[in-house]
Amino acid sequence: MRNIMIEIEYDGTRFCGWQIQPNGRTVQGEIKKALYTLTGNQIKVDGAGRTDAGVHARGQVANFFMDLAIPIGKIPMALNSLLPEDVSIVNAVEMPQDFHARYSAIGKRYSYVIYLKSVRSPLMRNYGHHVSYKIDIDKMKDASKVLLGTHDFKGFMASGSKIINTVRRIDEIDFNIHEKNLQIAFEGNGFLYNMVRIIVGALIELGRGKISKEHIILALQSGNRKLLGPTAPPQGLYLDKVFYPLTR
Amino acid sequence: MRNIMIEIEYDGTRFCGWQIQPNGRTVQGEIKKALYTLTGNQIKVDGAGRTDAGVHARGQVANFFMDLAIPIGKIPMALNSLLPEDVSIVNAVEMPQDFHARYSAIGKRYSYVIYLKSVRSPLMRNYGHHVSYKIDIDKMKDASKVLLGTHDFKGFMASGSKIINTVRRIDEIDFNIHEKNLQIAFEGNGFLYNMVRIIVGALIELGRGKISKEHIILALQSGNRKLLGPTAPPQGLYLDKVFYPLTR
Repeated sequence: MRNIMIEIEYDGTRFCGWQIQPNGRTVQGEIKKALYTLTGNQIKVDGAGRTDAGVHARGQVANFFMDLAIPIGKIPMALNSLLPEDVSIVNAVEMPQDFHARYSAIGKRYSYVIYLKSVRSPLMRNYGHHVSYKIDIDKMKDASKVLLGTHDFKGFMASGSKIINTVRRIDEIDFNIHEKNLQIAFEGNGFLYNMVRIIVGALIELGRGKISKEHIILALQSGNRKLLGPTAPPQGLYLDKVFYPLTR
Repeated sequence: MRNIMIEIEYDGTRFCGWQIQPNGRTVQGEIKKALYTLTGNQIKVDGAGRTDAGVHARGQVANFFMDLAIPIGKIPMALNSLLPEDVSIVNAVEMPQDFHARYSAIGKRYSYVIYLKSVRSPLMRNYGHHVSYKIDIDKMKDASKVLLGTHDFKGFMASGSKIINTVRRIDEIDFNIHEKNLQIAFEGNGFLYNMVRIIVGALIELGRGKISKEHIILALQSGNRKLLGPTAPPQGLYLDKVFYPLTR
């Protein structure tokens, strides 16, 4: 059986997220359906990570096993002809048997888009988070530095997660302004459930003066989620890239 | 009666265009409905120009007359609370009685987005035109210069238009690349029906080597639309700004 890795772009707006659900349209479900049409088999598709409803991806990764002797370079077009217009396979690579999209991953990059306008923007409504009040971006940049490195991010995780080891490493937090859009990019070895959205929510609260850098430091030390303010909404979040040994 | 000018942003994806139609959802229709709810009156709304289904706007302009004594600064928020999420009033200004969104306009800026990727992009599907083949952008830039200045653009107009005077002036054509997106911006004193999309279609044909600069020059001289190749699709087009005396 061939072990196929695919990179996937999707617009999360009309999806109930990545993972197959009994009711509701999912990215994993659409890919599974396309693979069934292509091969005639029910094929298991493993993703590098789940994304929630409304969250987008430029480089989600998944892998699956199949027998079909189609050339690897033809797989994106073959699947895209069967997939709906809000999901697209942008690349396919044949991998060793032991490759697994989730377990082999050594890191991820997410980015989060905030649009800074006084009035809501129809063109950004599904692709960024609207912040109409003044925020101090330099203060946000400065405070974000306390998150770099290896920490227990227990306080930066949505409640209800069953994860036990909540230690993660963030290697980079990058701020970029393009026109009225602030993009904050995060690279690290892994992210807990809602971790990026909770960090962004906290940075926004800090940027508008509702909390201080000390609240973030204290949340890291105490694991107390309540110090950080609301989770930023899903439509600003993009899974940009998943890193594997040698691909970085 | 107060003469109110509004600037409007909209996502054209789910609209049948700007202009009210007997069947189908239009931007003008939604604004008229919101004004009726706000004032209790049927109010005529004049736009600076029509946009087709799928075409977006960052700075469409319209004006209307009303009695309501609401402060001008509150009009955007008041209307936005009544408008659907894919249209937004971004500014409102009280104008002299003789101001008319269309007849007072002295120029417009449109931009057109082409995304240059080998595979279709779900995130760009409604916001740009997918070009998967190689195009020579330097050649396109060079050829675009023959369009600058005052010309009879009869050959650059969709058939069926009833316009008699087809002379227009283009002041600027600007090329910008941001990541995989090529944005071509056009400023001029006015644009014929589908003129920007026909120009972009011709520049793409030229960029891929299907026509030469001489075809464009000949189309300007002869008015022969057939020299230019297909019209670029609507979802890449944005009405960015309408210019008025003193606002430029």
